[in-house]
Amino acid sequence: MNAPEAPTAAVLIIGNEILSGRTQDLNLNYIARGLTKCGIRLLETRVVPDVTEAIVEAVNTLRANHTYLFTTGGIGATHDDITMASVSAAFGVKLTEQPEARKRIEKHYAERITPARLRMALMPEGAELIDNPISGAPSCRVGNVFVLAGIPGIMQSMFDSIVVGLRHGPAIKSMTIHSLVAESTIADEMTEIVLRHPAVEIGSYPWFKGGSFGTALVARGTDEGAIKLAAEELLALVRKQDTEATLAAG
Amino acid sequence: MNAPEAPTAAVLIIGNEILSGRTQDLNLNYIARGLTKCGIRLLETRVVPDVTEAIVEAVNTLRANHTYLFTTGGIGATHDDITMASVSAAFGVKLTEQPEARKRIEKHYAERITPARLRMALMPEGAELIDNPISGAPSCRVGNVFVLAGIPGIMQSMFDSIVVGLRHGPAIKSMTIHSLVAESTIADEMTEIVLRHPAVEIGSYPWFKGGSFGTALVARGTDEGAIKLAAEELLALVRKQDTEATLAAG
Repeated sequence: MNAPEAPTAAVLIIGNEILSGRTQDLNLNYIARGLTKCGIRLLETRVVPDVTEAIVEAVNTLRANHTYLFTTGGIGATHDDITMASVSAAFGVKLTEQPEARKRIEKHYAERITPARLRMALMPEGAELIDNPISGAPSCRVGNVFVLAGIPGIMQSMFDSIVVGLRHGPAIKSMTIHSLVAESTIADEMTEIVLRHPAVEIGSYPWFKGGSFGTALVARGTDEGAIKLAAEELLALVRKQDTEATLAAG
Repeated sequence: MNAPEAPTAAVLIIGNEILSGRTQDLNLNYIARGLTKCGIRLLETRVVPDVTEAIVEAVNTLRANHTYLFTTGGIGATHDDITMASVSAAFGVKLTEQPEARKRIEKHYAERITPARLRMALMPEGAELIDNPISGAPSCRVGNVFVLAGIPGIMQSMFDSIVVGLRHGPAIKSMTIHSLVAESTIADEMTEIVLRHPAVEIGSYPWFKGGSFGTALVARGTDEGAIKLAAEELLALVRKQDTEATLAAG
């Protein structure tokens, strides 16, 4: 269902704290929803530890395979913040002081400046700045790689500031049927609907919570008319068992 | 800091709904915490869409690189549940009916059995069953790959049932210092502490919430005495600025 020219993306989450379970990642979901709104299809995500070789390998694979790569985490001032150095290594360019970044950091911290804070001005050669309206130190873009913060509030403001400048694809629309039906009861008939609507991506998302269960059926794609037709057939199927099933955009 | 024989793991999250942003993944964090408790180091995670080639490639890379691979999602009865077929393809074995799985599914659904439900008995040849105490249809293990459900409640019960049988590593302990210090103010001195304690992994996790900020410093490793020494030095450093900073296990 992808037009050949539709942009694609990958996310690389950098941080031991995600892999140890100390921190629940919230950034992927924010980026995913933002990209979907722009018609950019997020096709892959990786989580790697704070290890240079792991970051370099993932950056190089993902930036080669997708229109855009967004990294999160590891851009602070401490010893375990190695994202900028790793992205430099991935691109084979020098880690160098970005003069405008240094200016902003000096202005933000004024007399509280320290060597560690100044190190946040070190970026891959040729990087363009990404604003940080919250905590002062900017981040950067190198080629098709956007280096974002790990702290959700800062990551979100950075992402929001760059997303308008990305190449958008045809808008991805969706309709969802909510029901209390078990997906396996409708699976066989649903497959027939799926086969009749090749231009629509149909997902079946069962849930189970506190002894109750149900299924959300999602019809997604770029052809609103085709989505609506498929969604109405799915609704009719589900209503055979749950007369209160609902259909809504989104 | 890894003993050479310490087991490692990867997680593969399978599902368009995670990449579209429709669903916030909660399974990675549960698995990560469970593995950490067992001394198994989770070193990589990937998220891929419901696309056979993407799943096959990720399964084969991750199972080759780690002691264990856990997949989540795509094991239901609908058209978009392609994990079992993809894992079969990854191992180069047939997707075949597992007799004990069929027996359990027939028993669970009794007169409500359908062709779609019976398809949940199709597994890679040679698979060993993983119990599903919640919704009846079991999952399976093939070699070092554990195929788990996507629904968090079911995934958790499956994970809990297999984790006792995994090869555990030396217990990973940690101590955390909670403070209202900005990490960049202590970064330079912290680096000295990091260098003095090569057997301890020291992480600095700044946070920013509703106008307040602070940093959690985590000392992790398998040598409890070394962790305690490093954590006490970190606490002393932080207390220079935040006299109410606290140190706790975990």
